[in-house]
Amino acid sequence: MIRTVVIGAAGRMGRRLVANIQESDTLELAGAVEYAESPFLGQDAGAVAGCGNAGVAITADLAGALKGADAVINFATAGVVESTRLAAENGCSAVVGTTALTAADKAEFAKLAESGARIVAAYNMSVGVNLLFKLVKEAATILGPDYDVEITEMHHNQKKDAPSGTAVRLAEVVCEAWDWDYDKDVRHGREGLVGARTKHEIGMHSLRGGDVVGDHTVIFAINGERIELTHKASSRDTFVKGALRAVEFLAKAKPGLYDMQDVLGLK
Amino acid sequence: MIRTVVIGAAGRMGRRLVANIQESDTLELAGAVEYAESPFLGQDAGAVAGCGNAGVAITADLAGALKGADAVINFATAGVVESTRLAAENGCSAVVGTTALTAADKAEFAKLAESGARIVAAYNMSVGVNLLFKLVKEAATILGPDYDVEITEMHHNQKKDAPSGTAVRLAEVVCEAWDWDYDKDVRHGREGLVGARTKHEIGMHSLRGGDVVGDHTVIFAINGERIELTHKASSRDTFVKGALRAVEFLAKAKPGLYDMQDVLGLK
Amino acid sequence: MIRTVVIGAAGRMGRRLVANIQESDTLELAGAVEYAESPFLGQDAGAVAGCGNAGVAITADLAGALKGADAVINFATAGVVESTRLAAENGCSAVVGTTALTAADKAEFAKLAESGARIVAAYNMSVGVNLLFKLVKEAATILGPDYDVEITEMHHNQKKDAPSGTAVRLAEVVCEAWDWDYDKDVRHGREGLVGARTKHEIGMHSLRGGDVVGDHTVIFAINGERIELTHKASSRDTFVKGALRAVEFLAKAKPGLYDMQDVLGLK
Amino acid sequence: MIRTVVIGAAGRMGRRLVANIQESDTLELAGAVEYAESPFLGQDAGAVAGCGNAGVAITADLAGALKGADAVINFATAGVVESTRLAAENGCSAVVGTTALTAADKAEFAKLAESGARIVAAYNMSVGVNLLFKLVKEAATILGPDYDVEITEMHHNQKKDAPSGTAVRLAEVVCEAWDWDYDKDVRHGREGLVGARTKHEIGMHSLRGGDVVGDHTVIFAINGERIELTHKASSRDTFVKGALRAVEFLAKAKPGLYDMQDVLGLK
Repeated sequence: MIRTVVIGAAGRMGRRLVANIQESDTLELAGAVEYAESPFLGQDAGAVAGCGNAGVAITADLAGALKGADAVINFATAGVVESTRLAAENGCSAVVGTTALTAADKAEFAKLAESGARIVAAYNMSVGVNLLFKLVKEAATILGPDYDVEITEMHHNQKKDAPSGTAVRLAEVVCEAWDWDYDKDVRHGREGLVGARTKHEIGMHSLRGGDVVGDHTVIFAINGERIELTHKASSRDTFVKGALRAVEFLAKAKPGLYDMQDVLGLK
Repeated sequence: MIRTVVIGAAGRMGRRLVANIQESDTLELAGAVEYAESPFLGQDAGAVAGCGNAGVAITADLAGALKGADAVINFATAGVVESTRLAAENGCSAVVGTTALTAADKAEFAKLAESGARIVAAYNMSVGVNLLFKLVKEAATILGPDYDVEITEMHHNQKKDAPSGTAVRLAEVVCEAWDWDYDKDVRHGREGLVGARTKHEIGMHSLRGGDVVGDHTVIFAINGERIELTHKASSRDTFVKGALRAVEFLAKAKPGLYDMQDVLGLK
Repeated sequence: MIRTVVIGAAGRMGRRLVANIQESDTLELAGAVEYAESPFLGQDAGAVAGCGNAGVAITADLAGALKGADAVINFATAGVVESTRLAAENGCSAVVGTTALTAADKAEFAKLAESGARIVAAYNMSVGVNLLFKLVKEAATILGPDYDVEITEMHHNQKKDAPSGTAVRLAEVVCEAWDWDYDKDVRHGREGLVGARTKHEIGMHSLRGGDVVGDHTVIFAINGERIELTHKASSRDTFVKGALRAVEFLAKAKPGLYDMQDVLGLK
Repeated sequence: MIRTVVIGAAGRMGRRLVANIQESDTLELAGAVEYAESPFLGQDAGAVAGCGNAGVAITADLAGALKGADAVINFATAGVVESTRLAAENGCSAVVGTTALTAADKAEFAKLAESGARIVAAYNMSVGVNLLFKLVKEAATILGPDYDVEITEMHHNQKKDAPSGTAVRLAEVVCEAWDWDYDKDVRHGREGLVGARTKHEIGMHSLRGGDVVGDHTVIFAINGERIELTHKASSRDTFVKGALRAVEFLAKAKPGLYDMQDVLGLK
């Protein structure tokens, strides 16, 4: 069993991490950390997560929590570099899911890795979305630009940006395969007498409604057939599962700085 | 059996009409008419349609073809009013699927109906699309504008206008149910930091690719659920089936000018 | 504002009811009731629901909670008849979502209604699913049995019965429209050289996987087109929304015992 | 331009091959062959295909047609080995789409290839379906059996076997990736109190209705997400496109016997 510490254990992601670790056959909850002013200090991490007592109290003492631990998972937004350094010094691998990493943060991670740390840092931990990137790249490469590509995504009605970052990345993957240019070749909002579809465009469609967590579909169409590659997220657990896989990956990896493509063997 | 004459029997729609009548349990092919210069005159209508001999030669003599007939189906673009008048004078009901009817043409039909003719004239003969209009109207009325509405349509890559006429009509149906305004409330092409979705908009998305005959979906979304109403056309037969139903409808109808909503009992 | 009491306020459904009432423009939380031994007594109902303080403490005193209230919502499994009677005696309307009602329970509700109570009792409170029943009935009636009907449903991998109750009901609705027999005409699991599809069968397909809350689709297919009517539940909020609509309906209804078809105007 | 001879040019597949070659930028129609008793001998192959005159008359003289040609495409059912040998002797590459090849036929092809012939023989020429096999294999390998797999396919109501051969192959691909057994692990028709889904099964669902050419979807589901990989065929052109790609592949290939996985670079 990989003894794992969750940093930010009382947060939205942290609770789901704790609950999923409790159900895991390979990971074991070794510690649960929150910031010094957290109202959850001293409470059982499992109870806070709503999955029954885990026998692990939430603490602000990261150094103490790391003793005897093998790994940390960190979705917190503050102090990520410091806590990752501390983990490395204690011989723990680190999985970092923070989305707001700066280039300087990543440079620090690279230095730690050179000194023997094992780290996974990834913007999107979802196994399925990372797989989708891989499959879309292959499909685009094999099918070629004779196929018309259209991308749809649907998210909840509170999302403020369009298209989603994942949809943008999906279009970029196609552009890379065909040596196209996202800014020039992605088309939004056909309306009016626009004429027949050109062969050199990717249609992009951002639907908004209800509480949809996130659906993405890439369509490759040609006379006679369509291939549709779809990902549907139903909960944050999709990101949690990716983080657990990353922990398992690091348990057998050489020191280094990795991303989810490494974890999933997609390179 | 309803003895039925097909006008424009060698055209794209006409061939499918002949083939479907040959398989019908209630209609029988009584005549097949083409214009005077047609190269198909004298050929067997079934052979031209690719469904085996029908025992009916294609002729330019409409008056002769009408003798002993009960109904005509007409998807031709020229001379529609004249041929419908001739049908009425011979006691035949008439189903007109021509899309380019003018207001004057319709006024003529109304006059013929007052004099005892039975006529169905409809822009879109598809049973399924007409049903979809009906179901969307009901869904919008029952659900109300708390539900977010998004409409997607996909057509082949040669289609020149967007959205499709059917998609426009679907949005209009929702607007009518909620007292909204198509021109103001339909939104195309979300892109950038557009902010959270307003409650007073219908998202419209026109996909183009391959040889898709025509897919339409109306999505009603709210926290907790989505209702999706979809129509997928796979061939022109969907319009042919509607025309045959219209013939059957007229066989039992009082004199009058009807549309597909009447035929399908959707009013 | 309709002053509403939630019975079972600390349960799974109760918490979502409280959270949704807090966001409502027409309902106001007037009371929150739990059983006498509940560990949540005295806690703020909004805090328990995770939506911020509501200013309403959870109590075991139903009679006290009913004072000044207009309505109760009850998804509890025990004592439903008694609490509904008490609500009625206090002039409150009652919405009962308990799934395990007996015929005797319903008879009691009917008596209360004769004495002036206003009650909605419904097995499935989802607006969308009840709408789907209505739309499928209409589609089946209008299209007729020339259309091939196939039903698919997908639920999480822990569901023990197949097909889902909702899928069974969807098939029953089609059977009622066509005077067919569920037991004879529904077909499960085509496998082998089964021959061409008969015209007198409904295909039923129960998918299981992941944590899918519940997807249902009814497909009507014929040469040339498909009509697909789909419901996708993403959370229990779909049932909560239905309950809130039922409260609003009763605020303007005559005394009587109603179901969700009444609430939604689907009869 | 690759000068290409179509064998069986007046058949269903042959006509589409001719029409697609006429639109190709890389292939040119060099000959059109039919059997000696064909009523189409002497007619223009393009006219028969309904795409305008091609300037190539249909002939029964294969040897004559091969003169100056680079390639043959053959979807005929009779004499395939003989015509392929003749093609090879004339220095033409050969694409064989006949589905009823025997092991002896394939052995003959292998011998011809050893003597310098370039041949593609494939059961299913569709680019998209072959791509789907590849993507499903990768998805299964990367995701692993923690994901629940369900397969759906829909075909027209005249199809006599279930599941489709393509759906069987999709399940086999998953079985191969996980070292499972198709006969033991594929499950048809859940009905009744079947209990929670086991981790060791693939759900298979064969829908039948209307004139659907062929839809296939493989779903990978786990708590939090679904990945769905779909192929939709809308016409025989999907097979024709694959054949044209195979011709282009052979124009640059070393002598050998290949299949569609080779053509598409999927190995």
